[in-house]
Amino acid sequence: MLIVMKNNASPEQISAVEEEVRKLGFTPYAIPGSQRTAIGVLGNEKQVDSITIEGLPGVINVIHVSRPYKLVGREFRQTCTTVEVGGVKIGGGTLTVMAGPCAVESREQIVSTAKFIASVGAAMLRGGAFKPRTSPYAFQGLCAEGVQLLAEARAASGLPFVTEVIDEKSLEVCAEDADMLQIGARNMQNFSLLKMVGQSGKPVLLKRGMSATVKDLLMSAEYIMSEGNEKIVLCERGIRTFSDASRNTLDLCAIPYIKAESHLPVVVDPSHAMGVRDKIAPVALAAVASGADGLMIEVHPNPRAALSDGPQSLDFECFAQTMKQIAAVAAAVGKTIASAK
Amino acid sequence: MLIVMKNNASPEQISAVEEEVRKLGFTPYAIPGSQRTAIGVLGNEKQVDSITIEGLPGVINVIHVSRPYKLVGREFRQTCTTVEVGGVKIGGGTLTVMAGPCAVESREQIVSTAKFIASVGAAMLRGGAFKPRTSPYAFQGLCAEGVQLLAEARAASGLPFVTEVIDEKSLEVCAEDADMLQIGARNMQNFSLLKMVGQSGKPVLLKRGMSATVKDLLMSAEYIMSEGNEKIVLCERGIRTFSDASRNTLDLCAIPYIKAESHLPVVVDPSHAMGVRDKIAPVALAAVASGADGLMIEVHPNPRAALSDGPQSLDFECFAQTMKQIAAVAAAVGKTIASAK
Amino acid sequence: MLIVMKNNASPEQISAVEEEVRKLGFTPYAIPGSQRTAIGVLGNEKQVDSITIEGLPGVINVIHVSRPYKLVGREFRQTCTTVEVGGVKIGGGTLTVMAGPCAVESREQIVSTAKFIASVGAAMLRGGAFKPRTSPYAFQGLCAEGVQLLAEARAASGLPFVTEVIDEKSLEVCAEDADMLQIGARNMQNFSLLKMVGQSGKPVLLKRGMSATVKDLLMSAEYIMSEGNEKIVLCERGIRTFSDASRNTLDLCAIPYIKAESHLPVVVDPSHAMGVRDKIAPVALAAVASGADGLMIEVHPNPRAALSDGPQSLDFECFAQTMKQIAAVAAAVGKTIASAK
Amino acid sequence: MLIVMKNNASPEQISAVEEEVRKLGFTPYAIPGSQRTAIGVLGNEKQVDSITIEGLPGVINVIHVSRPYKLVGREFRQTCTTVEVGGVKIGGGTLTVMAGPCAVESREQIVSTAKFIASVGAAMLRGGAFKPRTSPYAFQGLCAEGVQLLAEARAASGLPFVTEVIDEKSLEVCAEDADMLQIGARNMQNFSLLKMVGQSGKPVLLKRGMSATVKDLLMSAEYIMSEGNEKIVLCERGIRTFSDASRNTLDLCAIPYIKAESHLPVVVDPSHAMGVRDKIAPVALAAVASGADGLMIEVHPNPRAALSDGPQSLDFECFAQTMKQIAAVAAAVGKTIASAK
Repeated sequence: MLIVMKNNASPEQISAVEEEVRKLGFTPYAIPGSQRTAIGVLGNEKQVDSITIEGLPGVINVIHVSRPYKLVGREFRQTCTTVEVGGVKIGGGTLTVMAGPCAVESREQIVSTAKFIASVGAAMLRGGAFKPRTSPYAFQGLCAEGVQLLAEARAASGLPFVTEVIDEKSLEVCAEDADMLQIGARNMQNFSLLKMVGQSGKPVLLKRGMSATVKDLLMSAEYIMSEGNEKIVLCERGIRTFSDASRNTLDLCAIPYIKAESHLPVVVDPSHAMGVRDKIAPVALAAVASGADGLMIEVHPNPRAALSDGPQSLDFECFAQTMKQIAAVAAAVGKTIASAK
Repeated sequence: MLIVMKNNASPEQISAVEEEVRKLGFTPYAIPGSQRTAIGVLGNEKQVDSITIEGLPGVINVIHVSRPYKLVGREFRQTCTTVEVGGVKIGGGTLTVMAGPCAVESREQIVSTAKFIASVGAAMLRGGAFKPRTSPYAFQGLCAEGVQLLAEARAASGLPFVTEVIDEKSLEVCAEDADMLQIGARNMQNFSLLKMVGQSGKPVLLKRGMSATVKDLLMSAEYIMSEGNEKIVLCERGIRTFSDASRNTLDLCAIPYIKAESHLPVVVDPSHAMGVRDKIAPVALAAVASGADGLMIEVHPNPRAALSDGPQSLDFECFAQTMKQIAAVAAAVGKTIASAK
Repeated sequence: MLIVMKNNASPEQISAVEEEVRKLGFTPYAIPGSQRTAIGVLGNEKQVDSITIEGLPGVINVIHVSRPYKLVGREFRQTCTTVEVGGVKIGGGTLTVMAGPCAVESREQIVSTAKFIASVGAAMLRGGAFKPRTSPYAFQGLCAEGVQLLAEARAASGLPFVTEVIDEKSLEVCAEDADMLQIGARNMQNFSLLKMVGQSGKPVLLKRGMSATVKDLLMSAEYIMSEGNEKIVLCERGIRTFSDASRNTLDLCAIPYIKAESHLPVVVDPSHAMGVRDKIAPVALAAVASGADGLMIEVHPNPRAALSDGPQSLDFECFAQTMKQIAAVAAAVGKTIASAK
Repeated sequence: MLIVMKNNASPEQISAVEEEVRKLGFTPYAIPGSQRTAIGVLGNEKQVDSITIEGLPGVINVIHVSRPYKLVGREFRQTCTTVEVGGVKIGGGTLTVMAGPCAVESREQIVSTAKFIASVGAAMLRGGAFKPRTSPYAFQGLCAEGVQLLAEARAASGLPFVTEVIDEKSLEVCAEDADMLQIGARNMQNFSLLKMVGQSGKPVLLKRGMSATVKDLLMSAEYIMSEGNEKIVLCERGIRTFSDASRNTLDLCAIPYIKAESHLPVVVDPSHAMGVRDKIAPVALAAVASGADGLMIEVHPNPRAALSDGPQSLDFECFAQTMKQIAAVAAAVGKTIASAK
């Protein structure tokens, strides 16, 4: 940690800061400059809580040199983590495609989708049973019945499934049957829920919040991992900006950045970012080329009749075609498509 | 609702859209233009779910004319709502100041703060017992004990208190004792929690999420109100932008906009937006001048020793001085300071 | 400047960085930490160009401790600057209201506006003669004739005027007659233009760009001041964010921040931020309360017939009423309204 | 255009709006709804200036159905435009790689770079002679001498070059020798400059501003094209957001969106977005996969000694390797690499 003093800070103010640093159990280290003095703080293995220092007279800035995340950080684990979900590997040089409808609507819908996506190379099924909707009047999901149908689709297709949990009750329902638990963007900083999925020991797909920095995302992953659960896959799904090009702005610069900062695998959800069907494929290919370990794509047998997110769902034919393009780009960057079982 | 067709949409595509509108139970109303055709949709008392239409061939845009929020909207209730919390009124021409520490730390800390702020004109006490912290290693609050101490501070000062709930358990603890439940910015779209506080019947302080539009905020309020709880106070606390001027960018343009869109009262939290003590007062005064119904300000007997958010907390002397300025600006815009009891 | 090394940086990498620092003419100062080494750089009176260091092996981060702006910075000039424009003072404890139409349209329009606003307390006239419009098909201003009409309005009302310059030609026209030159938000980083207005010696109103940080704004002011022109007034007019509350998000947190960082006066333009007439007054009052040295408000004798920005212009009656509120809030924060001559 | 009335608008207010529409020379078309009335406007071949309507009593919203851009829009020209620059084609199914240093520094530097990048497949040379720098104290470019050196590098390598113009003077210098003129992000809305490059008749590379929507970008292109110059290539180079992943957030969702809205080719500059060398390649590949028509990449013989933007420049070896990956991904999406001559 580095404490920067104002250029007119008095010797007394500098001494007071040094004293405070010692009180916190660390060693101050004055660095006189031509215009101002800075004070280095040594011995801070743990994150120093800088709040007592920031408010001291004469202090203009406190700079944290260490990363606040430890367990999920690359600095403390060099090798990339691979997460296994029902026999499917995420990370480690393959590209894992998860696909399926936004919401589970019926047995027919989810089973047919699972079988079709499996036939064209997807490795995992996705489908929402508990839906967090911005409007209280919108379809909220089939809940426990939806999870049951996902299990049936898994049996029929051989694909493990991921589904979103939104609170304690949905977690109880899903923890039994689901292969992987999804934390949605809106719950990325629902710390109670993060702790619960951490304790569940289940693989977790953690989506980046709409206004979350990568640091925020990694801190949320740290919550899960500090409960002893290392099976975490991060997911970039677009951030909120002023851009009119898409519903959310997919932050693909974040992929190489996350790869450098963390050992955890990261997948990309182009469907929620783009928001409209006919522009999803180019963005999905871009995600593969950027180095993502996988994709999460919305597919629906009949997008026009979908109960949620229809406009951004691909139909079967379109998904089949996109899978071919995905495989070509994956090969171009040296990756193979992961497959179930 | 208005459906805009591409300028080269075929008559067959236009007919198909009209057919779909009829299937949904509404009446289509073609509006031929010089460059393109638009199709009005009549009879949609409820929000039409436009997803089946957006994906139809030839459709370039679907425009919703109605607001998606109903109960919280100004269109369906013209008069401003006043929310009463333990005898204190929020809304209706007064300015209500809530103050207190970020986190409850000890009996001494919270009782002395409550008594002091009451003595200089604050009407409500705030203090966190359950703290949502971005780091799992940071102080997480005194929990139930903290709520107990808030109740003691209320007894000692006569001020009702608001405290944050973060999940079912904290809600159970707080629902008994707290005068008002706070939903923090990170939980603004934790819809399960919104439903629970809606059902509690307690007054709710709903903070705007860091990346939430005003529409999003009002939809979250709609969740609470659709459970039959009308005692909702909105809170602007800064949004996430690129600006380097403050931790979050306080969106004061939102105050007159919220006032026009909704009948609910709205307060402003300048402490979390600004993030540093010495610049909070000007922003607090700006909030009053913008038409807010109240302020929420962090005050701590010894900010440098605070366990969380110390740098943004005012000490007693500074708060007393700020209260005088607040009263002057409130008077200039025709408001009086609300008082407890 | 502080150079932070990776936690696994080798002694050779650290030596190489120290060597590079010496080559640049500075003194390196190693600060060994428990997890990593940092290297302080001493003797850097001027801003060190850190690019040769950032790319060295083992370097994870380079932190600039000094501000990049000098002349406009508070650190090198403690006292607030007051800018005089045609006898009107901006800064120094008064509140200066500039008002007038977005665009000069006719003698009748601009003269009547100038006289009216003078009669209710405005100190300066504003009006665009050269208009930067996003569409090439929109009204581009009366150009030289517009400047002539502004001069007539000045003669009739006694108010000095500010008008926008957009290139060398418009600057030539305005430099003769105008009392103050405005640099619009879209030209805030048109460095050629900044140098030219710097050389003109005329008072300059520099608007913050839609995506400019305060640091960017101050660097642009530094361009003007480094040409020897100290008569600079900064202007906050809203930044681009995702918020749906207004056309641009007025960043009032920036006012106390600018005041702390720079000695230059700062005014606020609520009209461009808000974009709609009926919500401008609350935001204008907020700007006054936040500590701004002035306001710039669009006023038009007949907003519905305005050739540009009509929806955000106040009519005479509304402006007169707003001036009363402004005076009340200004008084509440200890300021008087500046007046012409 | 569609005018939406408030749900309690009176018949008189509706009539007044219809009257205003007729005055503007168009035909109103009332669309009564169950909750409110909307008024369609027919016959508006040109963009209606809606400002006289937005302020009328009872009006809640005015919705523009037509795009404000015409010449650059896809609706009025279906086929993709190909721009030829010194024999190199941009657009039309190939991928054009422009490379070179941020700033021209010396004959040796620019000639060696041009020859090297030509040898590994780049089709165009880039290099700044007139540099818009945020600090007045930073290196501002070699100016006319730099353009001369670029011409020498072109002669030595066979590559046409693009270089930035920042004002009338630099345009005069460049218009003679340069193959393509670049408008930088900070000048995207310098409308005087846009008109001048439009009149020059030279191919123009138009960079998206940091806070520009795609609509803004297309309107700026419309400025150039309305002067009769159709040789425009758009460039995505990152927008300003809160994300900590990169200096700017590359908006790759914009590529398919621009392709749908406009017939103009679009290239991507990953160097300015990413800001750090070792993460540029993944983002460049992502841009290719997203459907961009080209890339602009910073290459420097010795990035650590570069006078500007060193940290984001690739050295020769790294660029050669990246070109191989680019070719592989281009092939995967069905494109060939464009070549000079």
